[in-house]
Order: sequence, then structure tokens, then C-alpha cells
Amino acid sequence: MSYFDAASSLPLHPVARQALLASLDEGWADPARLHREGRRARMLLDAARQSAAEAVGCRPDELHFTPSGTHALHAGIAGALTGRRRTGRRLVVSAVEHSAVLHAAEAHERDGGTVHRVDVDRTGRVDVQEWGEALGADCALACLQSANHEVGTVQPVAEAASLCARTGVPLLVDAAQSLPWEPVPGDWSLLTGSAHKWGGPPGVGLLVVRKGVRFAPAGPADEREAGRAPGFENIPAVVAAAASLRAVRAEADAEAARLRALVDRIRARVPALVPDTEMVGDPLRRLPHLVTFSCLYVDGEALLHALDTAGFSVSSGSSCTSGTLTPSHVLRAMGVLSEGNVRISLPAGTGDEEVERFLDALPGVVEGVRAQVEAPPAAAATAATSVAETADEVTVDARGKLCPVPVIELAKAIGEVPAGGVVRVLADDEAARLDIPAWCEMTGHTFEGAAGVVFRVRRAGG
Amino acid sequence: MSYFDAASSLPLHPVARQALLASLDEGWADPARLHREGRRARMLLDAARQSAAEAVGCRPDELHFTPSGTHALHAGIAGALTGRRRTGRRLVVSAVEHSAVLHAAEAHERDGGTVHRVDVDRTGRVDVQEWGEALGADCALACLQSANHEVGTVQPVAEAASLCARTGVPLLVDAAQSLPWEPVPGDWSLLTGSAHKWGGPPGVGLLVVRKGVRFAPAGPADEREAGRAPGFENIPAVVAAAASLRAVRAEADAEAARLRALVDRIRARVPALVPDTEMVGDPLRRLPHLVTFSCLYVDGEALLHALDTAGFSVSSGSSCTSGTLTPSHVLRAMGVLSEGNVRISLPAGTGDEEVERFLDALPGVVEGVRAQVEAPPAAAATAATSVAETADEVTVDARGKLCPVPVIELAKAIGEVPAGGVVRVLADDEAARLDIPAWCEMTGHTFEGAAGVVFRVRRAGG
Repeated sequence: MSYFDAASSLPLHPVARQALLASLDEGWADPARLHREGRRARMLLDAARQSAAEAVGCRPDELHFTPSGTHALHAGIAGALTGRRRTGRRLVVSAVEHSAVLHAAEAHERDGGTVHRVDVDRTGRVDVQEWGEALGADCALACLQSANHEVGTVQPVAEAASLCARTGVPLLVDAAQSLPWEPVPGDWSLLTGSAHKWGGPPGVGLLVVRKGVRFAPAGPADEREAGRAPGFENIPAVVAAAASLRAVRAEADAEAARLRALVDRIRARVPALVPDTEMVGDPLRRLPHLVTFSCLYVDGEALLHALDTAGFSVSSGSSCTSGTLTPSHVLRAMGVLSEGNVRISLPAGTGDEEVERFLDALPGVVEGVRAQVEAPPAAAATAATSVAETADEVTVDARGKLCPVPVIELAKAIGEVPAGGVVRVLADDEAARLDIPAWCEMTGHTFEGAAGVVFRVRRAGG
Repeated sequence: MSYFDAASSLPLHPVARQALLASLDEGWADPARLHREGRRARMLLDAARQSAAEAVGCRPDELHFTPSGTHALHAGIAGALTGRRRTGRRLVVSAVEHSAVLHAAEAHERDGGTVHRVDVDRTGRVDVQEWGEALGADCALACLQSANHEVGTVQPVAEAASLCARTGVPLLVDAAQSLPWEPVPGDWSLLTGSAHKWGGPPGVGLLVVRKGVRFAPAGPADEREAGRAPGFENIPAVVAAAASLRAVRAEADAEAARLRALVDRIRARVPALVPDTEMVGDPLRRLPHLVTFSCLYVDGEALLHALDTAGFSVSSGSSCTSGTLTPSHVLRAMGVLSEGNVRISLPAGTGDEEVERFLDALPGVVEGVRAQVEAPPAAAATAATSVAETADEVTVDARGKLCPVPVIELAKAIGEVPAGGVVRVLADDEAARLDIPAWCEMTGHTFEGAAGVVFRVRRAGG
């Protein structure tokens, strides 16, 4: 069995386990109490805060433990927005932030604020110039992830922070994915993280608020964690989280180099091994351990299950794997293929041989899944095969059919029109809006636009 | 060492420890993922929900795990208030709810809502008739604790729930203190609890929302826990929490009977062993393991430290033990003495001999602390000693002096006036407002009222 979903959650690091066990015995009391059990708990909490602050690169009194990364984001965004309410009510975020940020942004809109979502390019990276233009006098807060959780692309955080500093806008960095690897560069104002992403236990997030940043905690008052994280302190988990952050950081550079080589191998070999596949995300400016690709004519959920059966646990941004049946907002913002999407994120310690086994297994697994949905033969859509040309324009009705069927129907129909001919696809699946243009991009045909449920594709070579 | 602060937090129950260790290995993955690690995590979460729901007495899909009891209260109150916003914006709470409830009520007021705080009697119990009168057509929600966390008094929850049901007002019960002992009776609508109060790990609260109760989660959307508790699920802790709730419940009846006898012994013997002491809270309708008393002429913080040195960890509602230097809101609402306050809450398994050791040690400890602050001799304030009567009215200036000094000065001065004479105490300490009337109540002198910083006390027997 190979678990390749580190970006989602990691098993407890041995150091975290040891720290957790010790502090379950020592750190269960209320640290606000004056008795010895309380004082002991307080000492553990203070030491964990000191240790985590060193790893983050901040003062201990700037760092607050929250119950999760999501809580850190929600509290950080709400607190910074409220603190700067008089300055303005505009929030700037990238379009590919974690859903916790985007949901907080929607809550801000419901509350009467405005949100500016900065677009990304096809690699998932925000444009620094566009970022700078989005800031302005009425801007209360800007949020930018250090690296994207779905495609691994690293964002220009230091540059974004400089632009923010120049306009006096605080920058909140969601560092959930990069914090296990390194401190966040640049002059940021707020920072968040999540311990179960670095082998700490669940139940621990970090919210860092730099001294001097205006901050007004939202919601009911609470005396704990400087009023920024209500609720009884989870000291055993906090101690374990701090211990494991230090432990993973001690090996981060060496491990990053090793995993980067494994990911390079996957990036280089998958397109050759599996036809009609698109690698997603920035090939260089990326997280060391994460790689994402999408396979045409593949049902993402079926692919996940087939890989699971073959012994590989991965994740996917395909619509069929989400509860809402919409493709990942990250892939949508990037404008890349979402069908047959696979995210591989290697845990520290992943061996060479595991990656080799994956590369051995993948072609057969994809082939099997494609056969189930009667996908067209490899590269059929781009091949200059001679076909019986029946008409200059063909209409395919794929309404009511879900990803990847509309694209498969399109790929089959494209052979029925002459070069320069048009296929009209009727499709009401959310994923089609993303995947039909992406298919055109990959195959060289021309996407002529969509009107309602009608997508027009012109065959290449006309 | 004897830890007598169970109401604050408990060490991890052995069953919880075992469950936690097992589920750290099995339940670390994201339960929303489709791979085997995710599915295994989901199964553990579902099983824990089922188990906790049985112990609470609700349907599994009515129970949501939150990061703490405080989160459960904040989310439950905000969600119920928002869900019934069209009905009205009035919130009814008892004056002795946990600070998490009162802080949520203050947030509701800041947001434009109104709050009705129902008074309690000298035992800390709400009057059912007053409760009923507080409800009404514009009332969105009522909150009543199952039992008070500082004095142990059990509230008439079933009667309050009936009154709520009659007027269509949902009742939220904060069951943090009673849930380890038994399910909450009556027809309540929402319920909250906190695992570290029953030997579960920190990081787990319960929010139960009965089917049919209008509820609109406040804050940013989140797909987890039915949208009622954002953030990554803390499955190992949740599994441990559910396991320990079942474990403590299995022994609850027998243990409650045993601890009730020990508490009865403390209630009976402390007033005889320690002069000028007031037992606080309802002597019968109370939590089995909790007893609170206050000692005249004693600095609460000094008493806590002295008991700690003697090997007993207890808690206190005295002003000097709080960060804000105000007496506990519970003692204030009850109108009872706050100085030298001691809360003893016995963990399951507390032995006879520990309680005997405590009763042996207490008189000497209190005597020592009283000697430090030059307290008047025992019962001096009530004794009919003949004194040199200098004037009909004496003024004592205790401004700038903190609890217990103003009361000590009063106790000394009362001997300087003849029966029927008056002592005027000038005092600006917050605790004096509570403790001077309470001292009069205990000693038989007459409290004639306060104006600003001036308190008038008439000597008995005039």
C-alpha cells in the first residue's frame, strides 16, 4: 500500500506521537488554574508556543493555537477585516485559495463587504502586477496562499507582501502546504497553518498575527489565546504539533530534494506512459512533493477507486469526486482539464520503488477505466485518420450526461466532420464548461465558444 | 497529591487513552476522501457519532462534534438565533450560565439583539415561574445549564423545557457538568457538552441540534459536520471522547452515590471545622461530586496556594484568583460571599482517605492564611464582647484595598461601635459590593445599603 495523499492529511509523526503521549499525562489540566496541574499545563503550552514560533519565524506572543487550519483562516480573516473596517471593506484573494478562505470571503460578501478575486494563469500562479493593481486604499486585507494545495504551484508571496506593505494592506498567508518545508518568506502580516499537514495531530491550527497589525477578534469574547481562539486549550495536541514541526523541519531540505526528484520522474514519465494526459501546475516553482495531472476520457472517481484497488491512495479535483459534482475551483480558475484528475502528494519517506510501482501500474489502470467508459482510442481525436465525412456540422446531445461522457462524445464526433467542420455539443454538466475548451487546447481543435448548453468546436486543419 | 478540580478538567480516562492510541493509527486521514485511509477514518467517525448519540439520547445525525464545549455553545447559540431571526431577537439565559454562554449573549447584544438574564436564588437555582415569564413571542432562544459549574446546583431543566415547548421557544441546555453523570431530562432542543469534563481528550465538544429545530450556521460555510462545525475532523480525539463517555456512564450511578456521600461529609464538617465559613449552593439538588464554600477574612489566591502546598488542587471564584479581579459572576448572581472561595470537585475514584486528609488539613490552612491578613479572631464579629465604645458611628477607609481587607476592617470596626451603632466602610474593590452584604448576612448585622464607595452597616442588638 502506498499513501500518496500527504497534502490532505498525514499519519502522526513518531515524534508527535511521543510528545502527545507524554503531554496527555502532563498537560490535561486547565492552564488558567493556579494549582500545580494547571501550572504544569501552562508551562507545556508556553514551551510549545515558543517552539512553534521559532519554526514559523515570529514572536511567541504573535502565535495563537486554534482548533484547525480552517479556524485559523476564519478567525484571521474575520479579525483582520473587522480591525480595518474603517479603512475599507474590500478583501483581495487569489482565485485558487483554499475553500476555507473562499468561504470566509463569501461570508464577508454576505455581510456587505466586497471581494476581489485575482485570477491565475494556466499554471495556477497569480500575476504580481494584477495583484498590485487589486490592492488600493479601500482594501482591508489580502490573502494569498504560499503554495497551492491542489496543483503545488508556489505563489509569489514575497513580492505580493512587498506590494501589500507599500499600500499598507496587511497580507494573510495561508501556509498550510508549505509550512512543513520552510518558513514563509517576505514581510507578511498574518499567517496560518495546520498541524495534521506536517504529521502533527488533528485539532491544531496556527494563527500568527504580527505585532502592530490591526486585529479585532470576531464573535464572542474569550480569555484564552489572547482572545483569538476561544475554547479550552488542547495542550497535548499543541505540544505534539510543535514537536513534529521541528522534527520535519530538521529533515525538510534533504527530504524536499529527494521527493522533488521523484516528482520530476512522475512529471516526465506519465505523459509518455499514459496518452492524452495533461500535467497540471508549474513544473518548477512548486511544492517538492506534489504533482497533479488529468487524463482525458476518464471518470475521476473510477480512476481513484482503481488506483485504490491497485494499492495507491491519491486525491482528485474531478467533479465526480466532489459532493457538489462540480470540478475543483482551482482547476477551473486555471482553465485546465478537470476530468480524470489525479493529485499525488508524497509523504516524507516515500521510496523510489513505490513511485516505480505507481508508474508501472498507472497505464494499465487508466486503460481499464477508459475501457469502461468506451473512450476513443489513444490520440484518436488528433490523428489525421480518414473518416466518412457526413456533414460539415454535427450535433452531439450529451445533456444529462456527466463527465467524462460529453468529452468522449465530442472526441468521437470530431472524426465525423471534415477538417474545418464543426461539432456542436449539447452538455449541461458543470465539468463540460471546463473540459471541452481544455480538450480543444490539448488536441489542437478550435473552441469557438459556448452559449448556454451549446459548445462549438471546429476541427483542426480546415 | 489530591486533585479536586474535576469540574475544570480531568486526566484522560484509561479507556479514552486506549481508544486514542488505536485511532491515531487508524483515523488520521481525511474522512471525505475516497481512498481506503479516508474510508477507514469515516467509519471510525460514524461509529463514534453513533456511540455518543446513544449516551446523549439523540439521533446520530443530530449530533455534531466541535473542537470544544465553548465552540459548541458559540455555534449552537449563533445558529439557533440566526435560524429564528424572523421570530425575534430576544435571547433568554440564566444569570449563572457558563461565561461562554454569557459572552455569546454579549455578542448578540453587540449585534443588535436583546438578552434577558433570569435571576437565581441564593442557592443558584433559577425560579421556574420567572423563567416562564421571561419567554414570549419575540424570544428566539433560551439557554439553561443542566447544573452549575461553580456551585453544583442542578437547574430545573425538564420544567424549563416544558415551558419553552409550550411557547415554541427552543431550549439549549449546556450539559457540560452533568453529561458525565446522566442524560439530560426533558424535551430540550439543543444540547452541548465537553469531552475533557468526562475524561475524554481536550479538543472535543458536542453540539446536538434536534431535528426540526430551525438552525442556520453562522460564519463561513463548511462541508464538515453538516456545516455546523468547520475544520478538519479530529477523529482520534472524537473516538476517545465517545469511548470514555460510555465508560464513565457505565459506572456513573454507583460512583455518584459514593461521591455524594463524600461531599455530604464535607458539607457537614467544614462549617464545624472552620469558623466563619459559608457553604454555597443547593445542599440537595446538586451535582454528586461538587461542593463549594467561602471563608471570611481569607484571600482566595493565598488559600489556593496554601492548599496546593498541602497537596490539594482546588479552584476558586474569588476575585483575587481571576484575571479581571472581579468575583465570579455566579457568586455575584447568588448574592453570597465570594472571599476565600473554594470549589471542590471530586474526580471519580476519589478515596475516603483523601477527603479525610483534606478535612484534617483545612482548618490549619485557613488559620494560617487568616493569620497572614490579620483576620479578627473567630466569630469576633458576632460575639457580644464589651468594647470601649468610642462613637455611634465609625468610618473605615479601605479604598485601594482588595478583598478580603475591606471585610476584615469592617469586622474589626464593628466592635468599636455600640449595639445599634453604624460602621461606614469606604471600599472601591469590586468584591466588597458582594462580600460586605454577605458578611452582614452571616454575622447578623444589618446591611443598610451602599452609595458609591460607601457601605453602611448597623451593629446588631441595637
